[in-house]
Amino acid sequence: MTDILERLADVLETRKQADPESSYVARLYAKGLDAILKKIGEEATETVMAAKDGEADKIVYEVADLWFHTLVLLAHQGLRPARVLAELDRRYGLSGIAEKAARGEQGAVKES
Amino acid sequence: MTDILERLADVLETRKQADPESSYVARLYAKGLDAILKKIGEEATETVMAAKDGEADKIVYEVADLWFHTLVLLAHQGLRPARVLAELDRRYGLSGIAEKAARGEQGAVKES
Amino acid sequence: MTDILERLADVLETRKQADPESSYVARLYAKGLDAILKKIGEEATETVMAAKDGEADKIVYEVADLWFHTLVLLAHQGLRPARVLAELDRRYGLSGIAEKAARGEQGAVKES
Amino acid sequence: MTDILERLADVLETRKQADPESSYVARLYAKGLDAILKKIGEEATETVMAAKDGEADKIVYEVADLWFHTLVLLAHQGLRPARVLAELDRRYGLSGIAEKAARGEQGAVKES
Repeated sequence: MTDILERLADVLETRKQADPESSYVARLYAKGLDAILKKIGEEATETVMAAKDGEADKIVYEVADLWFHTLVLLAHQGLRPARVLAELDRRYGLSGIAEKAARGEQGAVKES
Repeated sequence: MTDILERLADVLETRKQADPESSYVARLYAKGLDAILKKIGEEATETVMAAKDGEADKIVYEVADLWFHTLVLLAHQGLRPARVLAELDRRYGLSGIAEKAARGEQGAVKES
Repeated sequence: MTDILERLADVLETRKQADPESSYVARLYAKGLDAILKKIGEEATETVMAAKDGEADKIVYEVADLWFHTLVLLAHQGLRPARVLAELDRRYGLSGIAEKAARGEQGAVKES
Repeated sequence: MTDILERLADVLETRKQADPESSYVARLYAKGLDAILKKIGEEATETVMAAKDGEADKIVYEVADLWFHTLVLLAHQGLRPARVLAELDRRYGLSGIAEKAARGEQGAVKES
């Protein structure tokens, strides 16, 4: 299931060589960094609005949009989602620790 | 690697029963939806600033913060990250299609 | 000079009866609250990017865009900019106190 | 009434020489540009949430917060609110034109 982020990153990588007219992402790359960042600001706002509306499907849809555009940013900067996941793993000590947490052992997860 | 989102979601689930004083996330749940959404807006802005600075480590760090707080939102709403990943899969047709895209077959990925 | 906010509010008021096809603002009203809020999130992001670029003209331009869309929000909600200015006045005690502050008397301005 | 923005800008100017410990704004200047921009992102998100809640007082309060922090940004960059107002005036042709608009003459206001 969760290899999806890696697969999507692969696809976003191939889009870098694509004709800007050929796809939404190729167009976004061609417009440059600011256009990508503008979308991140926009999708964050839409996530907030969907959550205020309390509609589950809309929240899922907008979070997908937000994650998607952060993946475009990562690709644009030559970064892989695995680095973000590794940062979350490092920060929250998830390798083998989530199980303890799931068993209810308080403090198993490091939090800032 | 990528099961990290699911593991983190499990941990965030256990935090719902935790004493608000015991952890950052338990405190965030206790403050309620608006506090979580405020963090999403904040972390989106920090992602934008990190990208403008062009510092890879900072971008990774801020995107991790942004994903983390969207996971907190999903947990707060009783939603799993798998639903967001399924939406991305559905939208971009990643099951078995990413390979085609990686081989350079244009148009393999549906884009809005 | 600064009556401009009030005048702009007057104009935005007249746009409420306008044909949605006739102007950008009439179209925005027709799309509804979420469309207005999305623009506020977008223009805030653009203000952040302009500031990171450090270009004065761009900052002025984007802050104008941001203020403009908050004025559209106020109009949409039946609120006048004078209420926001009164809140700033109340909060920072500007009526007759700015002079003291300008003369360097510390603490003349209430801050949260 | 509306000289409030100019007065507030005067006050923000005097804060530049203040001890960072002496006031909220002096502290914000000391933290630097990113801290100011983070607040703009935050207050934009809070404005969006207040509007979704549909509470007039809260909207006024959050828009005041948002305008305030854009004024701090302008001061930090050596810019005056008059430049933003002049941009709005230029863009929407408010000098003497608002009256026409108020009389319902369509198209009196230039819109992008």
